Amino acid sequence: MRLQRGQKLLFIGDSITDCDRVKPVGEGLFGALGRGYVGMVDALLQAVYPELGIRVVNTGISGNTVVDLEARWQEDVLDRKPDWLSIMIGTNDVWRQYDTPFIQEWHVYPEQYEATLRKLVELTKPQVSQLVLMTPFFLESSEQDAMRRTMDQYGSIVRKIAEESGALFVDTQAAFNVVLKELYSATLAWDRVHPTQAGHAVLARAFLNAVGFQWNRE
Amino acid sequence: MRLQRGQKLLFIGDSITDCDRVKPVGEGLFGALGRGYVGMVDALLQAVYPELGIRVVNTGISGNTVVDLEARWQEDVLDRKPDWLSIMIGTNDVWRQYDTPFIQEWHVYPEQYEATLRKLVELTKPQVSQLVLMTPFFLESSEQDAMRRTMDQYGSIVRKIAEESGALFVDTQAAFNVVLKELYSATLAWDRVHPTQAGHAVLARAFLNAVGFQWNRE
Amino acid sequence: MRLQRGQKLLFIGDSITDCDRVKPVGEGLFGALGRGYVGMVDALLQAVYPELGIRVVNTGISGNTVVDLEARWQEDVLDRKPDWLSIMIGTNDVWRQYDTPFIQEWHVYPEQYEATLRKLVELTKPQVSQLVLMTPFFLESSEQDAMRRTMDQYGSIVRKIAEESGALFVDTQAAFNVVLKELYSATLAWDRVHPTQAGHAVLARAFLNAVGFQWNRE
Amino acid sequence: MRLQRGQKLLFIGDSITDCDRVKPVGEGLFGALGRGYVGMVDALLQAVYPELGIRVVNTGISGNTVVDLEARWQEDVLDRKPDWLSIMIGTNDVWRQYDTPFIQEWHVYPEQYEATLRKLVELTKPQVSQLVLMTPFFLESSEQDAMRRTMDQYGSIVRKIAEESGALFVDTQAAFNVVLKELYSATLAWDRVHPTQAGHAVLARAFLNAVGFQWNRE
Amino acid sequence: MRLQRGQKLLFIGDSITDCDRVKPVGEGLFGALGRGYVGMVDALLQAVYPELGIRVVNTGISGNTVVDLEARWQEDVLDRKPDWLSIMIGTNDVWRQYDTPFIQEWHVYPEQYEATLRKLVELTKPQVSQLVLMTPFFLESSEQDAMRRTMDQYGSIVRKIAEESGALFVDTQAAFNVVLKELYSATLAWDRVHPTQAGHAVLARAFLNAVGFQWNRE
Amino acid sequence: MRLQRGQKLLFIGDSITDCDRVKPVGEGLFGALGRGYVGMVDALLQAVYPELGIRVVNTGISGNTVVDLEARWQEDVLDRKPDWLSIMIGTNDVWRQYDTPFIQEWHVYPEQYEATLRKLVELTKPQVSQLVLMTPFFLESSEQDAMRRTMDQYGSIVRKIAEESGALFVDTQAAFNVVLKELYSATLAWDRVHPTQAGHAVLARAFLNAVGFQWNRE
Amino acid sequence: MRLQRGQKLLFIGDSITDCDRVKPVGEGLFGALGRGYVGMVDALLQAVYPELGIRVVNTGISGNTVVDLEARWQEDVLDRKPDWLSIMIGTNDVWRQYDTPFIQEWHVYPEQYEATLRKLVELTKPQVSQLVLMTPFFLESSEQDAMRRTMDQYGSIVRKIAEESGALFVDTQAAFNVVLKELYSATLAWDRVHPTQAGHAVLARAFLNAVGFQWNRE
Amino acid sequence: MRLQRGQKLLFIGDSITDCDRVKPVGEGLFGALGRGYVGMVDALLQAVYPELGIRVVNTGISGNTVVDLEARWQEDVLDRKPDWLSIMIGTNDVWRQYDTPFIQEWHVYPEQYEATLRKLVELTKPQVSQLVLMTPFFLESSEQDAMRRTMDQYGSIVRKIAEESGALFVDTQAAFNVVLKELYSATLAWDRVHPTQAGHAVLARAFLNAVGFQWNRE
Repeated sequence: MRLQRGQKLLFIGDSITDCDRVKPVGEGLFGALGRGYVGMVDALLQAVYPELGIRVVNTGISGNTVVDLEARWQEDVLDRKPDWLSIMIGTNDVWRQYDTPFIQEWHVYPEQYEATLRKLVELTKPQVSQLVLMTPFFLESSEQDAMRRTMDQYGSIVRKIAEESGALFVDTQAAFNVVLKELYSATLAWDRVHPTQAGHAVLARAFLNAVGFQWNRE
Repeated sequence: MRLQRGQKLLFIGDSITDCDRVKPVGEGLFGALGRGYVGMVDALLQAVYPELGIRVVNTGISGNTVVDLEARWQEDVLDRKPDWLSIMIGTNDVWRQYDTPFIQEWHVYPEQYEATLRKLVELTKPQVSQLVLMTPFFLESSEQDAMRRTMDQYGSIVRKIAEESGALFVDTQAAFNVVLKELYSATLAWDRVHPTQAGHAVLARAFLNAVGFQWNRE
Repeated sequence: MRLQRGQKLLFIGDSITDCDRVKPVGEGLFGALGRGYVGMVDALLQAVYPELGIRVVNTGISGNTVVDLEARWQEDVLDRKPDWLSIMIGTNDVWRQYDTPFIQEWHVYPEQYEATLRKLVELTKPQVSQLVLMTPFFLESSEQDAMRRTMDQYGSIVRKIAEESGALFVDTQAAFNVVLKELYSATLAWDRVHPTQAGHAVLARAFLNAVGFQWNRE
Repeated sequence: MRLQRGQKLLFIGDSITDCDRVKPVGEGLFGALGRGYVGMVDALLQAVYPELGIRVVNTGISGNTVVDLEARWQEDVLDRKPDWLSIMIGTNDVWRQYDTPFIQEWHVYPEQYEATLRKLVELTKPQVSQLVLMTPFFLESSEQDAMRRTMDQYGSIVRKIAEESGALFVDTQAAFNVVLKELYSATLAWDRVHPTQAGHAVLARAFLNAVGFQWNRE
Repeated sequence: MRLQRGQKLLFIGDSITDCDRVKPVGEGLFGALGRGYVGMVDALLQAVYPELGIRVVNTGISGNTVVDLEARWQEDVLDRKPDWLSIMIGTNDVWRQYDTPFIQEWHVYPEQYEATLRKLVELTKPQVSQLVLMTPFFLESSEQDAMRRTMDQYGSIVRKIAEESGALFVDTQAAFNVVLKELYSATLAWDRVHPTQAGHAVLARAFLNAVGFQWNRE
Repeated sequence: MRLQRGQKLLFIGDSITDCDRVKPVGEGLFGALGRGYVGMVDALLQAVYPELGIRVVNTGISGNTVVDLEARWQEDVLDRKPDWLSIMIGTNDVWRQYDTPFIQEWHVYPEQYEATLRKLVELTKPQVSQLVLMTPFFLESSEQDAMRRTMDQYGSIVRKIAEESGALFVDTQAAFNVVLKELYSATLAWDRVHPTQAGHAVLARAFLNAVGFQWNRE
Repeated sequence: MRLQRGQKLLFIGDSITDCDRVKPVGEGLFGALGRGYVGMVDALLQAVYPELGIRVVNTGISGNTVVDLEARWQEDVLDRKPDWLSIMIGTNDVWRQYDTPFIQEWHVYPEQYEATLRKLVELTKPQVSQLVLMTPFFLESSEQDAMRRTMDQYGSIVRKIAEESGALFVDTQAAFNVVLKELYSATLAWDRVHPTQAGHAVLARAFLNAVGFQWNRE
Repeated sequence: MRLQRGQKLLFIGDSITDCDRVKPVGEGLFGALGRGYVGMVDALLQAVYPELGIRVVNTGISGNTVVDLEARWQEDVLDRKPDWLSIMIGTNDVWRQYDTPFIQEWHVYPEQYEATLRKLVELTKPQVSQLVLMTPFFLESSEQDAMRRTMDQYGSIVRKIAEESGALFVDTQAAFNVVLKELYSATLAWDRVHPTQAGHAVLARAFLNAVGFQWNRE
């Protein structure tokens, strides 16, 4: 287990991270962390490693792109002084290209996505113990699907930046692909974007495996 | 124009037909026909052919399968004595096989779908002037997609029954395929099932063309 | 079809344009354009000409007169840089003279109406590809009715300004008059002002015919 | 003043009588009589003739036609044993012919209207001290208007039945016509049917004058 | 009738004047004037004298004392430039002395009441055609009751100021006393302050008689 | 203290007893006993005599008269098998005579009140350990007030029945009269019927003193 | 993993099982299984073993005791024909003895608890593949606490019945005790009964370990 | 009785003081003082000593610690110029250490608690007639419980500051301990913090006894 006693672990992202967390900052009791993978990560860390006292914070906001993250980075990431930072962003950067194709100012294209994400990572790396970069994903099994193809491209950018920066890398699309071999996408999300609790379990498990979590501790 | 002065045109189906129509029966002013293709058909008939006095009735109910239609056929179709009857059913019959695959009693498989639909058509044909059978559809451009493939199979059943019974046939999937060549499915429906108003315009236009509607009357 | 690939088409007006559009600007998915003629124009353009990618924007606000439009013209029209602009205004300018006749500061009389509308048209014409001027209307078949007579006078002003400026002209009153020969006004609107969906279909069709829309494209 | 100490005065009718009265029976404090002419009649009777102790009851129901009245006559009129009964019905009987002309089972045509109203009057006359028959009305000044013409026809039926039966007759249309000479219909009701409080004052005054009410008692 | 064609008549006061009027200013259609005596005055003026076009405005605010009126006098009275102004204030000035006797800063004692009201009257008199001063009232028949006694004292102040200033004087307590001889106070108001519609009719009638209103015009 | 370990104490009455208790029966945690004197009696019994384990039950219902109690006596009193029963009824029996004087079937006059209450007491006495009869009250200090006079008459009936039956007697009017010497009625209740929490403290203290409660136990 | 392809796993219990599941039966998408351990078990089963197609059903109802389960056993357990049945009951049986000690008919004492649970287990065992018995728990670390002591007694009954019947046994109290060594009870539940998501993770993990679930499958 | 005629008694604290009081300041009729011990103190003072006219004010705010009190001390205490001030604070200072142990900035440790409370007391003492210091409490009978132990430590600090400053001291924990000998904590509060009405009666009685209140005055 790489997380250490008393560390603060902050998640930032879009609606998949948000999941009705408490505003302005998701932290504390009463479902403050939301009903998604962040809440599940916190629950499993506390249930299995109660002595570590990991402090989980959720600052995801629905609808955000990487450009929105940049605008609130100081306040919602740096000022909170996390020990660990996990970023999962890109869904809306891509989705708007496909659901409102004529409104181009709502799109974030690959170069801007890459440049912005890299900038944020470089800015933050010196200030945290560990960075985790999670890819965005699309719950579609066909790699020929246009939006899946684009999402894979953004996932590759995340992988590249993770490698450059030494961040932990979580390939959420790969984690979902295992499940999508067995289950049609509609079982996990009618819109292929916002997962059921089972989909959030896939995300939580991928994250936890990356940080060395063990279900039955030795 | 095949609809004649004073005729009653009844639509039955699932949520795509329902679209928040007034309950127990969708008829009259104040959006009683719902916000979908039925309301648009009614609006265009009244706007372009006001002298015909076509009386449109909507009895769609969200979540219905062909089995649900059968259970309320006497009350919601026969007792209302329509001159024209339009049926669009099958979405949920198929969807439940893909979004809740383990709950088999929620599925309606092809044989049951075909037998039930045929029974309803045969029962009703002698009592109406004209039947319209609209296929169910799935807003996915790839014919290799599993659910699209199944939906196409159900569409073929509708075509077969239309041919047998002499009903007017509306191939909604074909109508959407033209649009899906230009637009990714998310533009028309995040869940590939419940269309935007543009998607309902596709349905309304397909229906109206089948009944001889002319935008600019000669 | 006079609308060209990728153009932005902005509608401004009063409650008949507004129709519960999303605020502060009506654009995008989920009924953002409202439940009136603007939403129907958008739906039919996208259904029939999906490859054009016309971007429709709605900035109508309930209760507005031409004086209210003037106050927000920079922000709600010019700053949004439309290629096409459609204006339909005047209902409230006239109606207040008839429903609250003693509150004169709520009235906009013909000279002010004409001067203000002309000013807005002249200001905007150099900045857009095409202007569409739609008359206000009153759903009353008798030309002797006092309010209908006044509304016709405002419609004439719109026609005059359209001719002066070379804008496309849509005579909505004329379009409704065809229907009012067949149907009593209460069928289209209890208050003779806010139309049913059928009335909005009359408006949408009149607009679309003016821009060269063809229901069945050649 | 023809109303006598301790008498019960019951009003029945449609939405113009109902006006959000308390259900199932409108009687007592806290606006139980609704916000229309019935409440105003009660208020003025109590304010000017407090010693009479007139007990006013409102059983109007929105949307009712004379056919609906017939169905609830025993329970809502006879069983309540009023001394005075006032009936104002016919608006919806006529309006449905004009706002939903194709749904004929919602219409009540003149013969049925006359026969039903006469039957109710004859049935009730022996059981009450005094009957008041108020005409329905339409807030349109032009007698050439189609719906006004029909409403006048229904008003004539009411007059005829009043004369036959010796009931007090209140010509509400005549009372409104005086006002409509000065004010356009929209000042009194956007839909020409549901009056403002001023319109209800016209009704209350016409009723009160018929029963011998004096604003400043001698 | 002392009100003349086209005059603006403004009412100011507390909850008895307010009665759920529209904010920020009560004027226009749809019950904007509230459900109290102001709305009834407007309704009767329009019903009986439609040709006068009296414009009634309501700026009453619940809970106000004369001190609260002073604070908003410029904005809510002078800036609105009424021809006629009617003031009814004092209920809360007195009531707080009796329902929360220990919170003295909520009380307005007679000297302050008199000085403030006189100041407002003197300030306004030159700017309006006519002033109407209505006394506050307490719906209690016993003159020995402590709060009734105090309220009568405030009523005397109003009478004195009316006489000094030549304002029309409306003795609402006297008008209610006639009714209270016949009816126990609970019939008109459970709390002896906020009247039923019958109580508002008493107020409206007292006001209208003061301005020369005639129920049946000669 | 006359209440003994483990006894069940049931209160029945009207809105003054009800005070938003939980329905169908007021018993248990979370304010189930309502916000009035019943909840305060329960709170003080538990706070001062926790070892007694008195089980308090509230079956008061707003608007009830003694006639309403009779109709639900078996279910709401006898079937619940209380050890102690406290009855406070009569407010509405009297009040309706004063607030809706013309609706006589809502009134319960003294003979019916006395006969019904006596019948209930006689029926119940053999089945409970102890009966408590509380008078109704009216928060008006003047004994000349008409409604106070009537309420005193009903209080006398309660006293008579208490004496006949050996029930504990609580003179709530007398308890309030002590306070009304110091405070005007509006401090305790705007409508002179529904007391503030201070008024409920008067009731609770009168009840508790009757049953031998001691604030500081010896 | 002891669960096999296509089996139906039904959970029954009280509020800890219920957790806002959909009524009347918790099954399907959109959080139908509630926000507690049942939903988490389902999510992890589907995420890690998607090919098994385990069908999870939740029939927990807040506030239930074992006596309430008995009353609905036929409908909510037997008629649903589960392959696996998991029971966790007893919280309310014990809690009512401590939070409403004077209302004895709300308590379920050990003998009744044991007899009823044994009866349900024996009745059901022949009809299911596998039974899981989970103890109730109390989130209090001190074994000397009165309610904890009682809850442990009920847990022993569950253990005894599990041994008799060969059911899988899940000692939830033991699972929580490990965590309670590190964290004060208030971290897991303010009321020591309804756990946070972390507490539900403890429950889900204890259940899953009992059925052979492996976080990282071999 | 130490409270004297006309004095103002202000309570400040956290949710136990707040109890849904009116904001921004709890004072006046209609439950403005909240549903807790403050409202009960006020009710009993007014019921038993109506001639004193004690003016009770509630400025408690849910969730407050002593640090939050300090931030609003000028506005919510000093500016209101109370004669008596009662402070009960510390619950949240302690609770956060136990329910969210990893979020240390939410904790107020003993030194800060003591220093801040002493500073507020010293600042205020010269400006009021009398200070009352009430300890925080925890509804747990075991003195070995960790949170009870900490709460007792904070109670000792309150006692020390009361002795130093000559304030009246109310040992709420001691008052509750008497009851907790008879009743398990869940009867008074599921979360051991927010009492039932019976728990508030314990608090009110402890306060009232400290100020010389006598239930039956001599």
